[in-house]
Amino acid sequence: MPSETQQDEIPKGEKLYEGKAKVLFQGEEEGTIIQYFKDDATAFNALKKGTITGKGIINNKMTELIMINLERIGIPTHFIKRLNDREQLVQHVEIVPLEVIVRNVIAGSMAKRLGIEEGTPLARPIIEFSLKDDDLGDPLIAEEHVLSLELATDEELSEIFDMTHQINDFLRGLFAGIGIKLIDFKLEYGRIYDEDGIGYRLILADEFSPDNCRLWDIETNKKLDKDRFRHDLGGEVEAYQEVAHRLGITL
Amino acid sequence: MPSETQQDEIPKGEKLYEGKAKVLFQGEEEGTIIQYFKDDATAFNALKKGTITGKGIINNKMTELIMINLERIGIPTHFIKRLNDREQLVQHVEIVPLEVIVRNVIAGSMAKRLGIEEGTPLARPIIEFSLKDDDLGDPLIAEEHVLSLELATDEELSEIFDMTHQINDFLRGLFAGIGIKLIDFKLEYGRIYDEDGIGYRLILADEFSPDNCRLWDIETNKKLDKDRFRHDLGGEVEAYQEVAHRLGITL
Repeated sequence: MPSETQQDEIPKGEKLYEGKAKVLFQGEEEGTIIQYFKDDATAFNALKKGTITGKGIINNKMTELIMINLERIGIPTHFIKRLNDREQLVQHVEIVPLEVIVRNVIAGSMAKRLGIEEGTPLARPIIEFSLKDDDLGDPLIAEEHVLSLELATDEELSEIFDMTHQINDFLRGLFAGIGIKLIDFKLEYGRIYDEDGIGYRLILADEFSPDNCRLWDIETNKKLDKDRFRHDLGGEVEAYQEVAHRLGITL
Repeated sequence: MPSETQQDEIPKGEKLYEGKAKVLFQGEEEGTIIQYFKDDATAFNALKKGTITGKGIINNKMTELIMINLERIGIPTHFIKRLNDREQLVQHVEIVPLEVIVRNVIAGSMAKRLGIEEGTPLARPIIEFSLKDDDLGDPLIAEEHVLSLELATDEELSEIFDMTHQINDFLRGLFAGIGIKLIDFKLEYGRIYDEDGIGYRLILADEFSPDNCRLWDIETNKKLDKDRFRHDLGGEVEAYQEVAHRLGITL
């Protein structure tokens, strides 16, 4: 395990952005970014704040594992490599200003909004879009809004649907293999431009961790994700560790 | 674990068919079939014959686990329930006379036929079709043959492609979660008719076991499937047990 000293040795450029759970620095090489994963946890658009000890390390290593696996099945991602316990190097992208939400089982905001009991399975997965805007509370939007507001093109949307379904099928399998139900999750995509600055392709540009998905034990339905923090259920550190352990991640 | 006596108590109807690895009996209820999983192993269109002790139990339980998981993501299958260690109850279907082969990594007959080294990953999965005919050695056919010989309709083919890709994505994830690469596998589909005898739908109608797929350890590339028997590598019993163990199956 790298010591704190080794971590400090990574040459980091300018601090670009500090978010709720990550800090972004300019990478040494042009077009790269270093993501630093914090233990800070927020919920309900940062109205609730706290810390989940060790979360940053788990989220960093879990994202590495998921991205490597997704690359293996042909999903392009922004992930380049993990640098140490809390940092990973990624490609700089132009982010598509959408939160792409996939739901296999009704939970969270959808349960509340539609008055349907949490845990109700969906006949087929739903892909929802939210406008990525913290000030507005990431409002839910329809496909028509995405197109009319020119947040993404028709072609991009169709690519996002295809990739997202494939990612969902793969990750449902991956978690089923370790006794976990993938209830829902959030993804973001980005555009990466060719040298001419005109041609580009869409790639997955996000972390994947219990911070942005719901994971329930397949037998007991025990929540193994940030809902433990959101709803003061306790045991959030142990839940994150449990997921990492089942995935074979060494902490 | 059910004793041999209990197994014999299952009321089985007429023996319908004895295949290389399974025996099919008429089920008690109309439209059902009991599949009995044998330990017999054959390869190279039955030119090579042998036994893999305990294989029938593993294949029966592994198929149960895979079918339950596939049903959860919305894939319709012929599986009804496991009856005991060696038997499962399935729906009677009109089989589509195609072996649907999915390849993620080049191996087996494709490596041989195209002279490409086994283990070469494919940029994207390939779906191949073979005509289900033992006497002809299940010859490879193209999509055009499927349509022109009226083995399946255009609509059915498109459904087979969609379902097969989804099954592949899910199973690659499931096996990745337990440290196994899904190299390739074979599926069969069947038609199940409505009461009017006209309307019907396609469902997955096959077993899923190390008999009809290739599974390699993700780290060492050790073969954990019937290739151990096919090519006299030894340790086939242990390999089947290893896969069952990683899947959490109690033998």
